[in-house]
Amino acid sequence: MSAATPGPSPSPSPAGPPTLLVLDAEPLPRLGRLTGRARVEHADASTLAERLPHADVLLVWDFASHAVRHAWPGEGPRPRWVHTASAGVDHLLCPELTASDTVVTNARGIFDEPVAEYVAALVLAMAKDLPRTLELQRSRRWRHREGQRVAGTRACVVGSGPVGRTIARTLKALGVTTALVGRVAHTGIHGPEDLDRLIARADWVIAAAPLTERTRGMFDARRFGVMQPSARFINVGRGPLVVTDALAEALDKRWIAGAALDVFAHEPLTSDSPLWGVPGLIVSPHMSGDTVGWRDELGVQFVELYERWAAGRPLLNVVDKQRGYVPGR
Amino acid sequence: MSAATPGPSPSPSPAGPPTLLVLDAEPLPRLGRLTGRARVEHADASTLAERLPHADVLLVWDFASHAVRHAWPGEGPRPRWVHTASAGVDHLLCPELTASDTVVTNARGIFDEPVAEYVAALVLAMAKDLPRTLELQRSRRWRHREGQRVAGTRACVVGSGPVGRTIARTLKALGVTTALVGRVAHTGIHGPEDLDRLIARADWVIAAAPLTERTRGMFDARRFGVMQPSARFINVGRGPLVVTDALAEALDKRWIAGAALDVFAHEPLTSDSPLWGVPGLIVSPHMSGDTVGWRDELGVQFVELYERWAAGRPLLNVVDKQRGYVPGR
Repeated sequence: MSAATPGPSPSPSPAGPPTLLVLDAEPLPRLGRLTGRARVEHADASTLAERLPHADVLLVWDFASHAVRHAWPGEGPRPRWVHTASAGVDHLLCPELTASDTVVTNARGIFDEPVAEYVAALVLAMAKDLPRTLELQRSRRWRHREGQRVAGTRACVVGSGPVGRTIARTLKALGVTTALVGRVAHTGIHGPEDLDRLIARADWVIAAAPLTERTRGMFDARRFGVMQPSARFINVGRGPLVVTDALAEALDKRWIAGAALDVFAHEPLTSDSPLWGVPGLIVSPHMSGDTVGWRDELGVQFVELYERWAAGRPLLNVVDKQRGYVPGR
Repeated sequence: MSAATPGPSPSPSPAGPPTLLVLDAEPLPRLGRLTGRARVEHADASTLAERLPHADVLLVWDFASHAVRHAWPGEGPRPRWVHTASAGVDHLLCPELTASDTVVTNARGIFDEPVAEYVAALVLAMAKDLPRTLELQRSRRWRHREGQRVAGTRACVVGSGPVGRTIARTLKALGVTTALVGRVAHTGIHGPEDLDRLIARADWVIAAAPLTERTRGMFDARRFGVMQPSARFINVGRGPLVVTDALAEALDKRWIAGAALDVFAHEPLTSDSPLWGVPGLIVSPHMSGDTVGWRDELGVQFVELYERWAAGRPLLNVVDKQRGYVPGR
């Protein structure tokens, strides 16, 4: 966790501890450590609107739900603090929440290293032609092929938050020359003005940006056209960063050599989606950040934030609601 | 290349430059740099025996062939130097060659980093359940699963030569705690007496040893029984290091969680081999060390060794024929 910013002060309800409303998902978070310090209530998409006015804090445990965006604009008081058990916040921000005084925090920090390892797994698997090896194994065919070296290749990682920076560090450890692109240029980080030049010479283009109005659809036909025929594209950020029709066409026409998508505009991907069958595309079910024990880590992270909040200390991981992510390092 | 040892001195044939006999494989090595400095002749398995007596140097370019072992014991003079374009030498050593004064050199150094990247690819793919992801993609099913973290796991790399050491270094860069096991204990290298203890607590057991009488069949039912149920086994050394029936049984009985074999006692693996279909086993066609440009690198390495030999300088990569590999660092 990084980026400390003052959060709201606690003001316990006259009748006892603050009310913590949890937008549930299975398995439930372990909140035993808050016993006596929070009155825990539960909601699902159908009950969220009616319960919101009575909550001091909202924990969006069901990070795949868009229920907050729908329920928030209603009548009555609103929680002073919303925490989402996810890195992205695009699924919960609505104009009314963004304009309000409510503080939004996210799960920054939990997913960085798992996502970076997942990206390294994809990069190495593509370099070593592992999907084809598994395919040949199924048909019991011995076909020697030459792999590619990963060390000495170039990556462009788009998104300079903790996930993007951890991806860059992990790829560098494998000998990959890596450039990071952020919203604005900083020391060691390129601004958007360098993006086309960098992806034009990258062997690996990796999308790890938040979904904002600036990033939506940024990987379109023009950008895939700029990339090298040997380039591979990986999206572990948010689905709508990519114009998937353009990606499918780029793969079909061999503008690029391969791609992997772990995130999609509509999840879960339905079985009739054409994306499952695009040659050269690896489709995975939004799992890059999720390693054994991840739910426990998300729960512990929230409990620690709650304890800070209840003690009147500044919250961490405070989202800039205008920008749509936690700014700074 | 490491391990310098005095090699044979050149003694050009009275009639001109030394005769360099090449045991051919397609594509042929590029030996243009030796024009005028070697009389290049070619042989295949059927002509090797008759041509050996006329050769000063033998280049075993067909590193998959066992022809040298069969042709060497015949009549007449023998080359003073044999170079094989492979890391392993088990396919060419026979008692007569081992007992002779002929110097044997290998391709030490060319495969280290490619093999290490390949092992990293397998480790990450298994940790992130990538084979299952590809299988689910084929049936268009969205099934979220939890991956495993690679950082913080333990590996035991068996084989402390340059390949094993490079594997260890690469895994360490990914945060894996790695122990190396060699023929004898050294600083930073465990001896065989620690092997069972190390594999018993390893998440990854990686075989990268040469094939010798000490290592043949070392991964047998007892050793798989010592490993953890969560352990994965990878062989990038030589096929006969592993008792494959025992490995198949260990996977079937869930003694271990998964395995990958890139090398086999008999290559290519025929389509009727039961290994193709063992659940939890990844089979690849002896390609871990072979990356784009590898044949050119092997050719350049030989040419440089030839130039040293022709100049009377000590050869590098000299194999200890009794031990079956290049000793030392």
